[in-house]
Amino acid sequence: MHFDIITLFPDFFDSPLSSSLIGKALAKEIATVNLVNPRNFTTDKHRKVDDITYGGGVGMLLKPEPIFAAVESLPMLPRREIILVTPQGQTLKQSVFKDLATNYDQLVIICGHYEGVDERIRQHLVTREVSLGDFVLTCGEIPALTIINGVVRLLPGTVGKVDSLKTESFETDLLDYPQYTRPANFRGWEVPEVLRSGNHKLIEQWRRAEQIKRTSDRRPDLWEKWSEDEG
Amino acid sequence: MHFDIITLFPDFFDSPLSSSLIGKALAKEIATVNLVNPRNFTTDKHRKVDDITYGGGVGMLLKPEPIFAAVESLPMLPRREIILVTPQGQTLKQSVFKDLATNYDQLVIICGHYEGVDERIRQHLVTREVSLGDFVLTCGEIPALTIINGVVRLLPGTVGKVDSLKTESFETDLLDYPQYTRPANFRGWEVPEVLRSGNHKLIEQWRRAEQIKRTSDRRPDLWEKWSEDEG
Repeated sequence: MHFDIITLFPDFFDSPLSSSLIGKALAKEIATVNLVNPRNFTTDKHRKVDDITYGGGVGMLLKPEPIFAAVESLPMLPRREIILVTPQGQTLKQSVFKDLATNYDQLVIICGHYEGVDERIRQHLVTREVSLGDFVLTCGEIPALTIINGVVRLLPGTVGKVDSLKTESFETDLLDYPQYTRPANFRGWEVPEVLRSGNHKLIEQWRRAEQIKRTSDRRPDLWEKWSEDEG
Repeated sequence: MHFDIITLFPDFFDSPLSSSLIGKALAKEIATVNLVNPRNFTTDKHRKVDDITYGGGVGMLLKPEPIFAAVESLPMLPRREIILVTPQGQTLKQSVFKDLATNYDQLVIICGHYEGVDERIRQHLVTREVSLGDFVLTCGEIPALTIINGVVRLLPGTVGKVDSLKTESFETDLLDYPQYTRPANFRGWEVPEVLRSGNHKLIEQWRRAEQIKRTSDRRPDLWEKWSEDEG
């Protein structure tokens, strides 16, 4: 998988992309990340990437020319998606990561900034708009980082045991069950007896029941979806 | 606002917290961020922070002792929330950022890692669980960064004009309208006539209609909520 990140703040990515599991995956070249600054694609002497909004409004918008030029400068792999991260996009969820990890070779991610981007970037350049959630951040770099992490995590070789991708949240629409590690007794709070019983059938039943309870308590929306699929 | 981030990878935060608007806000001490590594609160010679799961399962869990010790070492401000970032939590949205920015002096954020955290951390230490979305990442550092960004952005002094906080996505349950900047004609794609008319009443009507159209097309859930509130 190859990522091209179109960002006014390439330095933002320095430490997150060299830390922890993702840092290791990139070092192993499971994926590659190329950072592209649209400011290098300006043609005026002030290297202007933003400008005021037609019709009035506070804040600046990203101009179309440097973004188009930056994206058009990139070598193109066969299965490419050009993603804009914006609160107006499709909400990110596990199935989006799976789709991106499975069906594409190259993900170009345009990080918005300031008040947003010129509409013509959405209409004529971008092939998909995704949103991290129903909230506003100062920049698109955090959503871009989220996509890199969620996608690279699914690529073979990133997570040690493929099994551990299968049993977790959102693989079954149910939230995870409670998990405990040592010590068995911490400040008087004990690990449930059943988990120490060695009876695998009972453990599995307990976990399933806890998953259903937790999901119905906390996320009735997911629980309903799961009930329908089960029924 | 003071943040304490409980993280096994404090280096992760180096470049994101020194970039762009958030970097400037922290330099101006609009907020402070303290990074705490639970590994410094282990008492065994291997400085062990994780251990296997009771009842079986792949992957490791964060042990309770170093996390409790790290949090309990922190000076305590009057209005404090201890947040665990986890896919099992309340989904982040703009109103959560507002609540955190308005009603708290200190946000302690525990970044999960590996398979998750011992259940006793949830039950007996944490005061709120939040989720970045219905997906899985390799680490809690990205959700923590999201909370820092979304909250600091709302603090007075971070964003230049307070006005620009008011007119954007999720302040009204409607998505933003299309925005254009120069040039008026880019590759034959023109900025809509109305936005160049100078007629502020017409511009406002056009923008409102576009917001409603975009929201009903892309996010029927938000549109329904808005319609009910309006009706």
